[in-house]
Amino acid sequence: MEDLDKEIKNLRDWRKLDKKLEKNFKFKDFVDAFSFITKIALIAEKMNHHPDIKITYNIVEIELTTHDINGISSKDITLARKIDESL
Amino acid sequence: MEDLDKEIKNLRDWRKLDKKLEKNFKFKDFVDAFSFITKIALIAEKMNHHPDIKITYNIVEIELTTHDINGISSKDITLARKIDESL
Amino acid sequence: MEDLDKEIKNLRDWRKLDKKLEKNFKFKDFVDAFSFITKIALIAEKMNHHPDIKITYNIVEIELTTHDINGISSKDITLARKIDESL
Amino acid sequence: MEDLDKEIKNLRDWRKLDKKLEKNFKFKDFVDAFSFITKIALIAEKMNHHPDIKITYNIVEIELTTHDINGISSKDITLARKIDESL
Repeated sequence: MEDLDKEIKNLRDWRKLDKKLEKNFKFKDFVDAFSFITKIALIAEKMNHHPDIKITYNIVEIELTTHDINGISSKDITLARKIDESL
Repeated sequence: MEDLDKEIKNLRDWRKLDKKLEKNFKFKDFVDAFSFITKIALIAEKMNHHPDIKITYNIVEIELTTHDINGISSKDITLARKIDESL
Repeated sequence: MEDLDKEIKNLRDWRKLDKKLEKNFKFKDFVDAFSFITKIALIAEKMNHHPDIKITYNIVEIELTTHDINGISSKDITLARKIDESL
Repeated sequence: MEDLDKEIKNLRDWRKLDKKLEKNFKFKDFVDAFSFITKIALIAEKMNHHPDIKITYNIVEIELTTHDINGISSKDITLARKIDESL
């Protein structure tokens, strides 16, 4: 559990809320924002681990949680890293 | 304004909140849900009128509002209809 | 190899060419066609087996082959079935 | 017509074939390639002018033509520029 907290701290700009990780991304316009969530969808489907994604024109909000444990798992950290690397 | 209310009532299952229209859609899985929001993205970009879209695995939540008037306009009703027809 | 041929014959409307399976799909318009290839992209990325996809307005052409064996493998048949089921 | 030829020459790496413009794009992987064609799909649907798009894993081939005139029009040049700018 300590290791998990350490890994979370090493993520770029992800906020740790009670039971989830959260990050917002801002793009030039809707086209760039939607293209980004298409990348995330492909990555998530391959991992079989799906974030909540909200798109409001050029703003994308991502929330990561692991329902099985009702909290943050190493899967969320892996997905957070892959999302950051996809940019 | 009365006409707008009448048109909103004629929409299929869209809820009128204070300043927006809202509807949830449920799909078999993430793939079907994401394919649906890709359709909406294409329709919205063409209309230059973009809904808020949230995807949580197989659930898609759509919110429609017109920022210029800080409320619901005929554009929202047109987009609501196009979304329903795309299914 | 005989089993593979039998399975190919049982597919719906897939043509067997020399070293690949091929099928065309026709949709109402570009929006429906692109939404379909988004489904295929998600399925393919999850399988780590990617078809060639061509989109010409409302027509989608899919080609399936397995580069490792320079021919058709059971992976192609599985993906062909998943594509048909996604419609 | 001379102006059109001049504009075509000013495009970055688009080949002029008989009746169409053509360009290939190479990406890191399928995810990046598919995310790119999602951008193109949104741009094209908004312009109501749709290129032929082929995706082969990390390679995207784009062909632009204007069916009404059975050749290259200023619409194709505009779309070629928008595609290049989207990268």
